Amino acid sequence: MIQVAVMGHGVVGGGVTEILLKHAEQIAKKLGEEVYIKKVLDLRDFPDSPIADRFTKDFNDIISDDEIDIVVEVMGGLKPAYDFVKQSLSAGKSVVTSNKELVAAKGAELLAIAEEKNVNFLFEASVGGAIPIIRPLHQCLAANEIEKINGILNGTTNFILNKMINDNMAFEEALALAQEKGYAERNPAADIEGHDACRKICILAALVYGTHVYPENVHTEGITKVTLKDVEYAQAWGGAVKLIASARKNGDKQEIIVAPMFVSSDCQLSNVDGVYNELLVRGDSSGTIGFYGRGAGKLPTASAVVADVMDCVLHKDKRRNIIWKDGDGSNVLPYETYVNAMYVLANGDDSSAAFAKANEIFGECERIAMNGAEDGELAFVTPELSFADFTAKCGEFAKSADVKSTMRVAKI
Amino acid sequence: MIQVAVMGHGVVGGGVTEILLKHAEQIAKKLGEEVYIKKVLDLRDFPDSPIADRFTKDFNDIISDDEIDIVVEVMGGLKPAYDFVKQSLSAGKSVVTSNKELVAAKGAELLAIAEEKNVNFLFEASVGGAIPIIRPLHQCLAANEIEKINGILNGTTNFILNKMINDNMAFEEALALAQEKGYAERNPAADIEGHDACRKICILAALVYGTHVYPENVHTEGITKVTLKDVEYAQAWGGAVKLIASARKNGDKQEIIVAPMFVSSDCQLSNVDGVYNELLVRGDSSGTIGFYGRGAGKLPTASAVVADVMDCVLHKDKRRNIIWKDGDGSNVLPYETYVNAMYVLANGDDSSAAFAKANEIFGECERIAMNGAEDGELAFVTPELSFADFTAKCGEFAKSADVKSTMRVAKI
Repeated sequence: MIQVAVMGHGVVGGGVTEILLKHAEQIAKKLGEEVYIKKVLDLRDFPDSPIADRFTKDFNDIISDDEIDIVVEVMGGLKPAYDFVKQSLSAGKSVVTSNKELVAAKGAELLAIAEEKNVNFLFEASVGGAIPIIRPLHQCLAANEIEKINGILNGTTNFILNKMINDNMAFEEALALAQEKGYAERNPAADIEGHDACRKICILAALVYGTHVYPENVHTEGITKVTLKDVEYAQAWGGAVKLIASARKNGDKQEIIVAPMFVSSDCQLSNVDGVYNELLVRGDSSGTIGFYGRGAGKLPTASAVVADVMDCVLHKDKRRNIIWKDGDGSNVLPYETYVNAMYVLANGDDSSAAFAKANEIFGECERIAMNGAEDGELAFVTPELSFADFTAKCGEFAKSADVKSTMRVAKI
Repeated sequence: MIQVAVMGHGVVGGGVTEILLKHAEQIAKKLGEEVYIKKVLDLRDFPDSPIADRFTKDFNDIISDDEIDIVVEVMGGLKPAYDFVKQSLSAGKSVVTSNKELVAAKGAELLAIAEEKNVNFLFEASVGGAIPIIRPLHQCLAANEIEKINGILNGTTNFILNKMINDNMAFEEALALAQEKGYAERNPAADIEGHDACRKICILAALVYGTHVYPENVHTEGITKVTLKDVEYAQAWGGAVKLIASARKNGDKQEIIVAPMFVSSDCQLSNVDGVYNELLVRGDSSGTIGFYGRGAGKLPTASAVVADVMDCVLHKDKRRNIIWKDGDGSNVLPYETYVNAMYVLANGDDSSAAFAKANEIFGECERIAMNGAEDGELAFVTPELSFADFTAKCGEFAKSADVKSTMRVAKI
């Protein structure tokens, strides 16, 4: 029998205990031994839980219990999760977490402790909810050099953008609907400002390229400035606006960014609907591989946590060799150097004259025609150029037209 | 140092040696020890290979070499692969294979030998080429009860159907193009008759539901009877014709089938292009999860083989607990009992009268309107009914109209 403690009995934590209890027999059969929930840590009371007698409000009941081999951390946030996880690993307990904030902020340090203590620190649920991503990336693509990863890693923003695309809703209206449906938090900043997607791409980039990436070193734009008009022009161009989290190898360093981008309808990512996530990974041998599914939600996330718990049991004596070294940000190239084609929406007195000017400044651009465009309105896509170059040229172009909006065209 | 033998130096085998040599350093770093190709078995000579001196034509050089821990079987077919793999496992060597025919025909027996000898028998590359499917299904979804799996598991037929859809090519023309591009074999029967997809769904169903499924127990229809008109009507209906391999839980048994089906454009599978594959898996906790990528090809398949080899090295002392019991076909429900809506294309003197008859016989049907339909032509989709029921009713309907074509509507 393996004894586990679950820290946190919120949405995900409740799902973890639910699955461990409901599938107890099936899990025991697969593992050859029972997984027993010894303690659940939460400051609240849950008198109606079938295991109400195993709840505690005191972390000491877990850390001092030598029978507990695996600690599940599903509290979220850094305080007190970081301290509790560090203590647990240091005490020789394996830790499973769904906490992307924790892994993105402290992954390198916690993995080093896990290595030193020869225990597991697993976090499949921190990226992509139920979608197996961490393990396939680490294991199945072991024989590949990963050229790039691109994904839709935040379901809330994808839901909002989808409502804008399909139902012509304005951003604020779509956000309100997402909140009403429980997809977005009352304080939605982490989602709509791109921070959530940023933490996830940081974790994936660290896993793939071996160096910790801190979110503050990654240029991150949310979707708050995306207008209905941008979304319509993306459709007219032949694609969709998506919040893309991207990491790509460039020599010994990486280009990592989170931003709303035009995605061509040829690309699988343009078809990802609602609160779903998809990650595309390009390996030198494997070609492009995609992982798709619900990126959040009680049971999807909890099922990934439970799978990690089971993996800990199977790898009691031989820890998973997931490890990356700490980073100082020098492995992340400055975002001004990343090369993309750029979408530009502008207004001028004479759109044809403005387009001629655009071609003169940016090189040959692709004009986007759209039914219902206003007089003097001009939308186009530039040739590929660095962001620094674009910013300079756009400043020059702004002398002849009023630039309303710009966005990267994704290179996936 | 781990010594391996590679049996077969064809397309996939050549890719395996190429990756093992090219990524030798990276692989050694990840494993903590070197993977050394001790022998390559092939009846042909390869004097230009950088490891030409390690080729042999004699299997005894492998089976009698105690230093060889892992045998890679990439010959394909059953003879002599089955005998060689069985001998290798019996001799206590782990085996990695990409041979779906072998796993579908002999998986239960070979897994039992592997268990007895405490070695690994891994076959990630047998389904979906480079796409990690076997391992995520087995591991990451361990905490789920799998309700159903549906996939496009054969790239050749998907390429052909795509050419019919996008370029209005007739089946024969698209097949010729697939052969020209090297996607289809000169004898394309295994692909276009659905046998290849059938072997793969048999392997996945065995893995998920625990009982070996022999291909001969699975109702399998290929795409040879799919006409351009069917493809056009599928589009008019709002979807696409795809060759779907499907397994779903029904009580203690399974419904397993391979057939061309109408797939709604809402479904990810309708968007899978060219030679790509995608598998959708529905777990009770995870919801639907998708795995997407190139299902065949030299390096994609070889990279999955190499990842399995690396997994064998990491699990030398603790074998993966992949196992399923032998089956007698009684776990596969008769396909006549599977319930689907059905597409019907018919010709009559008066299509409206024929449609009235259809509604009378099948219940309320959905008529598919299409520009350019011929006089008297009628296409419709029935309500859901068992295939046996459909066959009987269709016989009755055929008295009032000439039934040209029928096809299942996928339930994914």
